[in-house]
Amino acid sequence: MLKNDLILRAARGEKTERTPVWLMRQAGRILPEYRAVRKSLSGFKELVETPELAAEVTIQPVDILGVDAAIIFSDILVIPEAMGLTYEMVEQKGPHFPKTVESSKDIDALKVADPVDLSYVFDAIKITKRELDGRVPLIGFAGAPWTIFSYMIEGGGSKTFSKARRLLYADAEMAERLLEMITESTIGYLKKQIEAGADMIQVFDSWAGVLPPEQYSQFSLKYISKICDAIDEVPVTVFAKGAWWALPDMADIDCRTVGLDWNMNPHSARKILNNKTLQGNLDPCALYGSNETIRHETEKMLNAFGDHPYIANLGHGVYPDTDPQKVKYFIECVKNLSAY
Amino acid sequence: MLKNDLILRAARGEKTERTPVWLMRQAGRILPEYRAVRKSLSGFKELVETPELAAEVTIQPVDILGVDAAIIFSDILVIPEAMGLTYEMVEQKGPHFPKTVESSKDIDALKVADPVDLSYVFDAIKITKRELDGRVPLIGFAGAPWTIFSYMIEGGGSKTFSKARRLLYADAEMAERLLEMITESTIGYLKKQIEAGADMIQVFDSWAGVLPPEQYSQFSLKYISKICDAIDEVPVTVFAKGAWWALPDMADIDCRTVGLDWNMNPHSARKILNNKTLQGNLDPCALYGSNETIRHETEKMLNAFGDHPYIANLGHGVYPDTDPQKVKYFIECVKNLSAY
Repeated sequence: MLKNDLILRAARGEKTERTPVWLMRQAGRILPEYRAVRKSLSGFKELVETPELAAEVTIQPVDILGVDAAIIFSDILVIPEAMGLTYEMVEQKGPHFPKTVESSKDIDALKVADPVDLSYVFDAIKITKRELDGRVPLIGFAGAPWTIFSYMIEGGGSKTFSKARRLLYADAEMAERLLEMITESTIGYLKKQIEAGADMIQVFDSWAGVLPPEQYSQFSLKYISKICDAIDEVPVTVFAKGAWWALPDMADIDCRTVGLDWNMNPHSARKILNNKTLQGNLDPCALYGSNETIRHETEKMLNAFGDHPYIANLGHGVYPDTDPQKVKYFIECVKNLSAY
Repeated sequence: MLKNDLILRAARGEKTERTPVWLMRQAGRILPEYRAVRKSLSGFKELVETPELAAEVTIQPVDILGVDAAIIFSDILVIPEAMGLTYEMVEQKGPHFPKTVESSKDIDALKVADPVDLSYVFDAIKITKRELDGRVPLIGFAGAPWTIFSYMIEGGGSKTFSKARRLLYADAEMAERLLEMITESTIGYLKKQIEAGADMIQVFDSWAGVLPPEQYSQFSLKYISKICDAIDEVPVTVFAKGAWWALPDMADIDCRTVGLDWNMNPHSARKILNNKTLQGNLDPCALYGSNETIRHETEKMLNAFGDHPYIANLGHGVYPDTDPQKVKYFIECVKNLSAY
């Protein structure tokens, strides 16, 4: 029994008494309470893999910031790891894969992820659900296959993702074989998240923006669509950062909500996606402004999304050096300014 | 007297007997001949600041690759340097500013660039023009004020440019003061490039894509427009990477050519910008493909741009590990496939 199900109702396309709000990357680096937990551990992965602690930092923003949803603390890279490619999280630098996929033989050595190897995530979801006790819904998530693929080929972040993109021109078949395996792994993983208690699912395509539109359809959207087709238990949100050209195609995908980044115009997106709930899209940098600026920008955003099914959020993850007080103020602004 | 003025005629909107072609970043890292010159020097900046050598590497791609234009070998960061903020080029990492702009006082300490401090660029242009002897036109260039501003605040590249963007929310007036100074510096600099012999000008807004559309108008396009208004001696090209939302506004800017990146659709851009010449936009990663792939992708690109004033190019700079033979093949494909 959920006491606050605003976000689920908004995702289903229902009118809500006010706009629900949460923040991408809300569970994490911005909160001193998170850093306190994190400091006691050997590293980021220990936190991801310890269900009690993952649950604790998942719930922190609900208690401290007053968001309308929790999102399970985890990482999109648990999937390549469960497929056989271990990652490290390098302090101040981000993810790093000591071994990457370079050849067809490297793909032969991988497997479709067995959910058993990811049980720490499902355990974290169960504990979170118990401790949330219905206060707000819990969002589960995974990376889009193209984004996961990019990490597996590049071995980390990149300015151009030219290694991963090279493969699409040089050996499309090999690329598709790996993308299929990631997709299958992701579907199994998300189904288990839902079984464990996730109330909705978000698919993050963080590196969507680097592909030409045709390649985006062939090598990314196709697999996102497969995932959406397979998940019918709970509402699914697709957030493809930078893929403005794909919004018309998103209309035909079996997801309930489409996330917008801060380059995308809510008015135009609304025209294209009138069958979907929209989510987004404040520039995370707006939270560096004064309260007056934040209130002004939030009001502009709410007006732009208008009187349609809508979930307020940033246009990307909150930046680590953002003042939690500013985040709190943003959340209050959404709540107060959107109430009927 | 130019023997090949295809690119200038295309920029003026004239029909040409075939499509002219050049590559962003053609003078540089992909050519062994460039690396040979570079190896004999202490660093990148020595090459930029030695007119004879800058001219030599500017001409290399004309001789070796058969492009229809040379672009002066230099760097967009010579402008902040002439304003009083020195940069270093760190091998394998990119530009770094030991001191960045953090306060209004830091801006007080800067000056509008005096072209005298940039005479090494004008000397390089003069030598290049003499040695090119009319074979192809020479392109001069500068960074767009927003991109230069980002470097001056961030001190280098960045994933999010959140420091530079923070200032737009936190102190718009301070941001505008610096942008004005960069704009004035750039106009004086470009006028001197033209005096020295540059036949056309390209303005690169490499970090256009990180701004929300409204901020892009206010903090970038406004200043690009000022530059275009000030330069009427030769045709100007504006390339704003990632700023797809700004294409309609580009129609109203006093430039002749608009560059497209590989996310942008030539058909839609043509509809929006029917008063301009278009330039672009092959994905640089396509050059990692087989000759067959390159030919196929080039043909698709030429068809998409169709029978309108057009300059073939990549959608961004050529990647350093691209095989020069592939670049050559791309150029031949454009020449052969576009000939009437």
